[in-house]
Amino acid sequence: MSHTHPELGAPPALQPGALRVTPLGGLGEIGRNMTVFEYDGKLLVVDCGVLFPEDHQPGVDLILPDFESIRDRLDDIVGIVLTHGHEDHIGGVPYLLRERGDIPVIGSKLTLALVDSKLREHRLKDIPHYVVAAGDIEGFAPFECEFVAVNHSIPDALAVAIRTPAGTVVHTGDFKMDQLPLDGRITDLRAFARLGEAGVDLLLSDSTNSDVPGFTTTEREITPVLDRVFAASEQRIIVACFASHIHRVQQVLNAAVEHGRKVAYIGRSMVRNMAIARDLGYLQVPDGVLVDGRAIEDYRPDELVLVSTGSQGEPMSALARIANRDHDKVRIEPGDTVVLASSMIPGNENAVYRVINGLTRLGARVVHKGNALVHVSGHASAGELLYLYNIVRPDNVMPVHGETRHLHANAALAAATGVPAERVLIGEDGMVVDLRDGVARIVGQVDCGYVYVDGSTVGDITDSELKDRRILGEEGFISVIVVIDSTTGKIVSGPQIQARGFAEDDSVFNDIRPRLEEALELAVRDGVRDTYQLQQTIRRTIGRWVSGAHRRRPMIVPIVIEA
Amino acid sequence: MSHTHPELGAPPALQPGALRVTPLGGLGEIGRNMTVFEYDGKLLVVDCGVLFPEDHQPGVDLILPDFESIRDRLDDIVGIVLTHGHEDHIGGVPYLLRERGDIPVIGSKLTLALVDSKLREHRLKDIPHYVVAAGDIEGFAPFECEFVAVNHSIPDALAVAIRTPAGTVVHTGDFKMDQLPLDGRITDLRAFARLGEAGVDLLLSDSTNSDVPGFTTTEREITPVLDRVFAASEQRIIVACFASHIHRVQQVLNAAVEHGRKVAYIGRSMVRNMAIARDLGYLQVPDGVLVDGRAIEDYRPDELVLVSTGSQGEPMSALARIANRDHDKVRIEPGDTVVLASSMIPGNENAVYRVINGLTRLGARVVHKGNALVHVSGHASAGELLYLYNIVRPDNVMPVHGETRHLHANAALAAATGVPAERVLIGEDGMVVDLRDGVARIVGQVDCGYVYVDGSTVGDITDSELKDRRILGEEGFISVIVVIDSTTGKIVSGPQIQARGFAEDDSVFNDIRPRLEEALELAVRDGVRDTYQLQQTIRRTIGRWVSGAHRRRPMIVPIVIEA
Repeated sequence: MSHTHPELGAPPALQPGALRVTPLGGLGEIGRNMTVFEYDGKLLVVDCGVLFPEDHQPGVDLILPDFESIRDRLDDIVGIVLTHGHEDHIGGVPYLLRERGDIPVIGSKLTLALVDSKLREHRLKDIPHYVVAAGDIEGFAPFECEFVAVNHSIPDALAVAIRTPAGTVVHTGDFKMDQLPLDGRITDLRAFARLGEAGVDLLLSDSTNSDVPGFTTTEREITPVLDRVFAASEQRIIVACFASHIHRVQQVLNAAVEHGRKVAYIGRSMVRNMAIARDLGYLQVPDGVLVDGRAIEDYRPDELVLVSTGSQGEPMSALARIANRDHDKVRIEPGDTVVLASSMIPGNENAVYRVINGLTRLGARVVHKGNALVHVSGHASAGELLYLYNIVRPDNVMPVHGETRHLHANAALAAATGVPAERVLIGEDGMVVDLRDGVARIVGQVDCGYVYVDGSTVGDITDSELKDRRILGEEGFISVIVVIDSTTGKIVSGPQIQARGFAEDDSVFNDIRPRLEEALELAVRDGVRDTYQLQQTIRRTIGRWVSGAHRRRPMIVPIVIEA
Repeated sequence: MSHTHPELGAPPALQPGALRVTPLGGLGEIGRNMTVFEYDGKLLVVDCGVLFPEDHQPGVDLILPDFESIRDRLDDIVGIVLTHGHEDHIGGVPYLLRERGDIPVIGSKLTLALVDSKLREHRLKDIPHYVVAAGDIEGFAPFECEFVAVNHSIPDALAVAIRTPAGTVVHTGDFKMDQLPLDGRITDLRAFARLGEAGVDLLLSDSTNSDVPGFTTTEREITPVLDRVFAASEQRIIVACFASHIHRVQQVLNAAVEHGRKVAYIGRSMVRNMAIARDLGYLQVPDGVLVDGRAIEDYRPDELVLVSTGSQGEPMSALARIANRDHDKVRIEPGDTVVLASSMIPGNENAVYRVINGLTRLGARVVHKGNALVHVSGHASAGELLYLYNIVRPDNVMPVHGETRHLHANAALAAATGVPAERVLIGEDGMVVDLRDGVARIVGQVDCGYVYVDGSTVGDITDSELKDRRILGEEGFISVIVVIDSTTGKIVSGPQIQARGFAEDDSVFNDIRPRLEEALELAVRDGVRDTYQLQQTIRRTIGRWVSGAHRRRPMIVPIVIEA
């Protein structure tokens, strides 16, 4: 799918003194966030994330931003600024670094630690690192970056103000304005005010929750809920959450200590991330509370809390296996408690409900967002966005990070605070915006398709293969193989029918086989020698039969071999 | 998937004087509701619905209850009672009638009219009909049925009390207790009270909303919301809802009249159902308000309200095509309003959001459940279920109509009102319950698998084909065809590689083709003549390469032909 807007052409050459902003992902989707800033021949990239596929993109592992428009400009990139450590902001970094391995990677301590662990998995080494912190001002010429603390569902998140002679752009990254965050690190509204006073020419702001009225509830409100759940539990407790949600795990650790339980992590990414978070001081682990996940059988169920991945119902996760009675160490007994301390990402509902049903059937009490306050969002709701606009008072606004409905809702908020409607740009991936003389204008569009990662291959799978997969997945295929004599043109073997995903019993083909033989013999008798024409005969004969007699449309794969 | 409980065997012969209750669908899922009652050698069926497939059942159109356990008892069926006209209660009727065409079909006037229209599509004629109404007591020997008015998201819904010498069973069907229903037809709590006073031995009750606290909001509250939306709209208005939600359409008609607009139906099922509802007096259509859907271009956008199907984001629906700018008559302009007056069925979220995003992108304001009270559920929430239990005071309870999590929540409500825990049965599809001497007990289980309808075929697709489809859909396939000389065993043609859904560019096979040839030649040289063994050689060679070099697992289809 191309996001190219039909009315927009390629952008003109960038005028001297102007700043160009090109989002290559995250506008029109929740994920693969990436924005490219260009000034005076140099590029600065903010974020490089992945998007997770939907059901019409079967078998795809990840979707990347499209690097095509910067592929011949890689040497001009002065750095990649990463606002925080979530996959939709850092997951694409290894793929960009595969194309040029010495691009400096810039981010907070935790963000870069998570990137590092990812780069190691991809066997990428010796990447130049620049650790920055809130309040830092660093030059990546010709860009000057000032980093601002924001809170989100992962610690150490940063917004970034980018200064060039063309003006100042503020990119919020993902953020919310929790006024009582667990770690005391508030979104730095003083810094936003100071930036606003000095003049912000363009504000790019997180749209994820822009259609949610009011304010996102503080993380702190989860504490008493967990406390009540723990107090009421006399047997095993399992808490599932995102493996990057360090504050959520901190709350579970605190509750466990309070209720005299020990904690074991289940799931590779949970173990890895919590080790990083602890080593860097983002997670406070009281002495003696942690036990090894391999040793959980040494404890009674009421002595432990298991902190697990799998909150999205991922079929291979520990939690799904536990729900399916297929886990080697953990067996649910009536009276156990499972807490899903997470959101339900759209599209995952049925998978999550399958896990909840499985756990319920085994006798567990399942506590989730639908029946208790065990999750709050990491994104600013509409009320917080209004604060942002009123504090920053930007001259131009472009909502980022959201599906179309979110971008529009966020644009309406900006306009409501007094940003002139014509200065609120609703962009799309690949849309090119130039900031010149204090005015941001859409000037063109670059190609910005979906780039699919499947296994170890990038880009081999295109929308055409996905269409084939959708047909195969919904209808299966019928393959007919015929061998013809290359000199006489006579059929020497076949037609042989091979089908998958079509019918359990091959006898379903009994009535079409003779008709197929007849059609082929007739064609050969009529002098057809061309394999393409014989293939068409097969396709037509099978196609008519299957749509008439079965009202179905499997993929038909005719194979004519000359031997 | 079999729902057979490992610890339960086939049920014993039914004791004289006992009543047997066997749910064949609807327990462990939302859909394919069907319960079989047996007394004295005769069977009474309550409902016969379909289940809609989830994403792990690709390409399946419908899932039926499993008739296997009653297939040799069809002649004993005295009737099918249909509680209301929704697909998950009537959709399986044509498939049961295909097996025995003269089973009497029993239901309210509207329910039977909707069934009739369905039977005509299936070309089933002359089915015996018994129209019943709330308050009727009818004998279908040995069963006596009393019908009780309940309200739901379709008019004319009935609960049924079934009396035999073994006792009285009440089956609520789907219901809620809207105290101010639009048509004034309240759920008849006096009748439930009377039944309860006389003694209800077993109550089967709707679990769909049993995990929702409180009370379902009355339909009437939607009226002022629609009124405000209509008042604020200066251009086109489209309202999408379920084609069976006659009261919702009534509200739209009323609002249209109030605001001086005419109404056109879009979507075949909407047109058909509203004609039935009007003819039978369930829908009051003021004179002159309706215009033909083919004539909408004769009106200005601000003169019309379009009432459309497609509220679940179905890709072929009118609404999806409108969102995709692919509808021949309706084009969204900035300022238009679209109302999705419906729930979002789990699993449909992404499809619905795609439609919302498409409409938003074209400039429409989209009003939906997430931002306005334009939908209320048709099912009783926990608070209403408590009323039910306290009014009926049944001796035994079996929750029906729900996933496991709903059945458990409903069971907890029954127990909370004082039904002894051991008298609350949490069943599963196929579980056999005998009511004897006033006590209901689980006595065994019958086979009760999923029966898949795909196109015009029933049961051809099994879980094994669905597994193949899932692999094909996620990974595609690689087929390798080799022709060998049947006498010499030499390879005379191939290996030829055919792949679909694997890679856009066939050059991906350049490095494996010579290795494959080598492996085959080696095998032939080693004297392998067996086509199975050659197939294994192909499978192994391709399999290793694809998992090593690509980290993928497509289906491998080796075809060795002797010619």
